[in-house]
Amino acid sequence: MMNSIEENQIINSLVKDFNRSPLQINQLHSSDSELIRLKTNDNSILTVTTDSIVEEIGLGLYDDPYLIGWMIVMVNLSDLAAVGADPLGILISEILPNNLDDDFKNKLQKGISDACNANGTYVLGGDTNFGDQLILNGTAVGIISGGNVISRVGCKPDDILYTSGNIGSGNALALTKLVYKSEQEYKYKPMARLREGKLIRKYTNACMDTSDGVISTLDQLMRLNNFGFTFVDNWSTSLETNSKILFEKYNLPLWLLLAGQHGEFELLFTIPKSNEIDFLKSASDINWNPIKIGKATKQCEIILPIYEKKVSLDGQKIRNLANITDLNISKYLQSLLDLDKSFRQ
Amino acid sequence: MMNSIEENQIINSLVKDFNRSPLQINQLHSSDSELIRLKTNDNSILTVTTDSIVEEIGLGLYDDPYLIGWMIVMVNLSDLAAVGADPLGILISEILPNNLDDDFKNKLQKGISDACNANGTYVLGGDTNFGDQLILNGTAVGIISGGNVISRVGCKPDDILYTSGNIGSGNALALTKLVYKSEQEYKYKPMARLREGKLIRKYTNACMDTSDGVISTLDQLMRLNNFGFTFVDNWSTSLETNSKILFEKYNLPLWLLLAGQHGEFELLFTIPKSNEIDFLKSASDINWNPIKIGKATKQCEIILPIYEKKVSLDGQKIRNLANITDLNISKYLQSLLDLDKSFRQ
Repeated sequence: MMNSIEENQIINSLVKDFNRSPLQINQLHSSDSELIRLKTNDNSILTVTTDSIVEEIGLGLYDDPYLIGWMIVMVNLSDLAAVGADPLGILISEILPNNLDDDFKNKLQKGISDACNANGTYVLGGDTNFGDQLILNGTAVGIISGGNVISRVGCKPDDILYTSGNIGSGNALALTKLVYKSEQEYKYKPMARLREGKLIRKYTNACMDTSDGVISTLDQLMRLNNFGFTFVDNWSTSLETNSKILFEKYNLPLWLLLAGQHGEFELLFTIPKSNEIDFLKSASDINWNPIKIGKATKQCEIILPIYEKKVSLDGQKIRNLANITDLNISKYLQSLLDLDKSFRQ
Repeated sequence: MMNSIEENQIINSLVKDFNRSPLQINQLHSSDSELIRLKTNDNSILTVTTDSIVEEIGLGLYDDPYLIGWMIVMVNLSDLAAVGADPLGILISEILPNNLDDDFKNKLQKGISDACNANGTYVLGGDTNFGDQLILNGTAVGIISGGNVISRVGCKPDDILYTSGNIGSGNALALTKLVYKSEQEYKYKPMARLREGKLIRKYTNACMDTSDGVISTLDQLMRLNNFGFTFVDNWSTSLETNSKILFEKYNLPLWLLLAGQHGEFELLFTIPKSNEIDFLKSASDINWNPIKIGKATKQCEIILPIYEKKVSLDGQKIRNLANITDLNISKYLQSLLDLDKSFRQ
């Protein structure tokens, strides 16, 4: 099941000869952030995660150095958020082209610094090298101080599916930057949901961040849990306002805001019905409004109500589109529009 | 003082706006591996370090995929060794060119796997991306379970300077791969000195790995401690045998095995005289023979006995040579040979 996704195949193939630490709690694919029980303490868990920014820069999706710096921190902290950890800090490895000017570098570092400050965390160290392309790698380290451990696995049919905030902004950015090359900057500045992740940890039985977009995330959860998901009828109210306006302006189907593979770094998680009242009360106590977008189902499908039908989305097809279309964004968008056309028939 | 080295300048400039974690024990430049006191335990320290392999691949120094995999683990574990840590594992981030064949990838992963197994440690996670160049990044995580904390700072005049093993192999590899492009493979397979690092930690007052070669390492230690170093008269007995044979074959001065900036990943450390007997006894108990190569001195110079003189090596000049000669290896070697000529006069 995992192997029908090329990304999973690549990962499985790369790690196939590795031994796995007996101290590591999570299985391959089953957590956003690696979990290592600390020998030295009774309950604490050390969590570490690594993520690079390469293609986003190469494609021109991130061309603002401040955003690049901001994102290398946020993508990693978002993985810590997905396991409800307190961050200890982040290591940043930078590969810089020789011709990079100081202004660019300063903005890059400012983005890193601001993103750390915004989350009360720190750059702990790093590494600098020079190469042909600008490439950033981050490794975040966090501590989970006892209590529940979240993974991506554990949801059950009829669990309620929530998102930590409005969705679609990642794909709205991709549309403006890559397709319409609009002069108007689309405001994109995700915040890792660390505070929310710590609360979610008490009530959820599966959680994952939407770094690859909502459908990719649900598809991964579906494959890991062997359960499907059905969106609520009014799912489009969960969309981020400016993203929705943008897609309407260009006459693009709104569900593509879920299908595109550049995410908004929200948390997608399931809450058992029995926990829902307590969960919502705790969320309200911290002035946070999680958004109900669907529920888990016995049937292994992702069902989206559109065009007055219950459309079954082919997660495998949608996730592999980026590879099939060879990262050509016009082809990629056209393939999604072809899919949309088939739903309307 | 730190700023006369371009590498330090770059690092200082990059981190200048970052806040530093109140939990981080080591200062900037003062440790091979970042040290974070764990809140959750009375004595344990979490240590994390990150290092990439970029230029080594770009220049052709590492062209064997197995070696590349082996090295991305070893360079990071070597930093853990330098602080006397027990590794918890490593995160590996890979940027792969699209055209990389499976055989290459398999050998790469085998190198990673073998290097972990050889040290009883594990790949904890990672990240894969695609780009123009093959680039590997590793982040190692370790625990120091109480007792002394080693840093690079703390040595005193008359402390004895030791290396954990024979030196020169990194620069011997560079000579065969980059200058003479020899068909004969020079056997280069460093082992992180984890076992030795844990023992060193009990006795040393400054330790650093020789990832950038011996002179660069001593120069960095000199700048951090404000003390110099004098090599013993018979320093050349510390050279790795095949490296020495190779340099003699090509009529190259042996001290270039110390000066070149591709290291052998041994540990360079100082032992106070009062600890020396106990240290050597403990080393002998684990069948390890540390090699005495010099001592710390009040005067802030690196003194090497060659050509029947006490030559003062200009660490700043030698370390910056690689940048001045723009990574052109023939120019770089010629600059070192010019320096050697000046010593003979």
